[in-house]
Amino acid sequence: MATQNVYDDPDFFAAYLKLRRSVQGLAGAPEWPALSGLLPDLAGQRVLDLGCGLGWFGRWARAQGAASVLAVDVSASMLTRARAMTGDAAIEFREMDLEQARFEAGAFDLAFSSLTFHYLADLDRLLAGIGDSLRPGGTLVFSVEHPIFTASSRQQWITTGDGRRIWPVERYAVEGPRLFDWLGAAVVKQHRTFGTWVGALLRQGFVLRHVQDWSPSARQVRDDPTLAAEIERPMFLLIRADRPEGRSGRG
Amino acid sequence: MATQNVYDDPDFFAAYLKLRRSVQGLAGAPEWPALSGLLPDLAGQRVLDLGCGLGWFGRWARAQGAASVLAVDVSASMLTRARAMTGDAAIEFREMDLEQARFEAGAFDLAFSSLTFHYLADLDRLLAGIGDSLRPGGTLVFSVEHPIFTASSRQQWITTGDGRRIWPVERYAVEGPRLFDWLGAAVVKQHRTFGTWVGALLRQGFVLRHVQDWSPSARQVRDDPTLAAEIERPMFLLIRADRPEGRSGRG
Repeated sequence: MATQNVYDDPDFFAAYLKLRRSVQGLAGAPEWPALSGLLPDLAGQRVLDLGCGLGWFGRWARAQGAASVLAVDVSASMLTRARAMTGDAAIEFREMDLEQARFEAGAFDLAFSSLTFHYLADLDRLLAGIGDSLRPGGTLVFSVEHPIFTASSRQQWITTGDGRRIWPVERYAVEGPRLFDWLGAAVVKQHRTFGTWVGALLRQGFVLRHVQDWSPSARQVRDDPTLAAEIERPMFLLIRADRPEGRSGRG
Repeated sequence: MATQNVYDDPDFFAAYLKLRRSVQGLAGAPEWPALSGLLPDLAGQRVLDLGCGLGWFGRWARAQGAASVLAVDVSASMLTRARAMTGDAAIEFREMDLEQARFEAGAFDLAFSSLTFHYLADLDRLLAGIGDSLRPGGTLVFSVEHPIFTASSRQQWITTGDGRRIWPVERYAVEGPRLFDWLGAAVVKQHRTFGTWVGALLRQGFVLRHVQDWSPSARQVRDDPTLAAEIERPMFLLIRADRPEGRSGRG
């Protein structure tokens, strides 16, 4: 099954381009300081960016000294924009359905993905491909929508009778597609439990290095009070996992 | 600070003894089939049971061939009952505050704990002590109340205006003590995020082997329809982590 590609819907894409993280790039993503803290030193690294969107990460990685970046995305509209934003020949943009993707074995030191994997149905196949594409000792850093965020049948706050503002969790153990409205489009996200995210990584031979339920710092909330809601329930899960040195370790 | 010991309150303890898992033991704990699935072969193993309660696990471990069991708990009332339930000289029951506990280095093959660690404030100290007590290659298997369960300021379902029965998550990123009413007593539980549970294990040199947000099987729900609620939100987090072979790996 091909991955949904709502980004090539012109109305959706126009709305997407107005999001703060589309306009401001990495600086407009409040989880970026935490996510970037999970990255290794990028100097000389061969980087794979999975679901690159407008290509902000690849350009940043090059500025940090990355040797090369292969930035892939399913959306042609997105890649056209991304290509127009750089003349750097060491960044290759490639249109690719991540659920079908195959990469050269051991070709990358770092695989990165921001808020993409929760759109993909076959997580084990994806992680197996990423594992193969990394050199032994290579690193995977990614963010996804948090299981607490994706569990809810409607991603909306609720105010209780006694005035508490709470986030509704329901059908947590029922994994699989959830249909949500986002920017006027119907978007399918894959809900997975925490154990499923971690288990898929372990099954594909990754060694778990860091897991973080992202929440804003006190300073971030002071600078942008709308972020206070993110204290109440986590929107993002940030993970670093490494391919073992030597043998692949896949079980 | 000494660990709270509500179990030695006579009224609380009387109510506790009436719980299904107190009367039926392991068979009365719906997560037991999943939790026991994380255990290694117990034949010949030296077992440490942390927060042993009435001692069900130690007796079961001995029936599986465990060489010896050290079963510790903070509650004298609990240990008196537990001792009365077995004459097995290979099971030692010891009264001990887990937040102050120290064990002989490398003395155990398996450390086990059921629904205890979320009562303890100093997780890193606890896990460091457990790590030291395990032989290289030894295993830690434990269950705790799930972060989704402990986050809520009241552990109670909510029915929304449109008739959905949801579990309220709030103050997820605010870790630390939460005061709950349970069996007529005020009980302090420590709320921790997923990332904190996993991060503490990694920091103490454990290798993560399995993480599971427990939910009942279809058969369990058929046999006991009250378990259907556990599909909606997870009550328990089950984890297996091993001490590495050779060096401790503590970072």
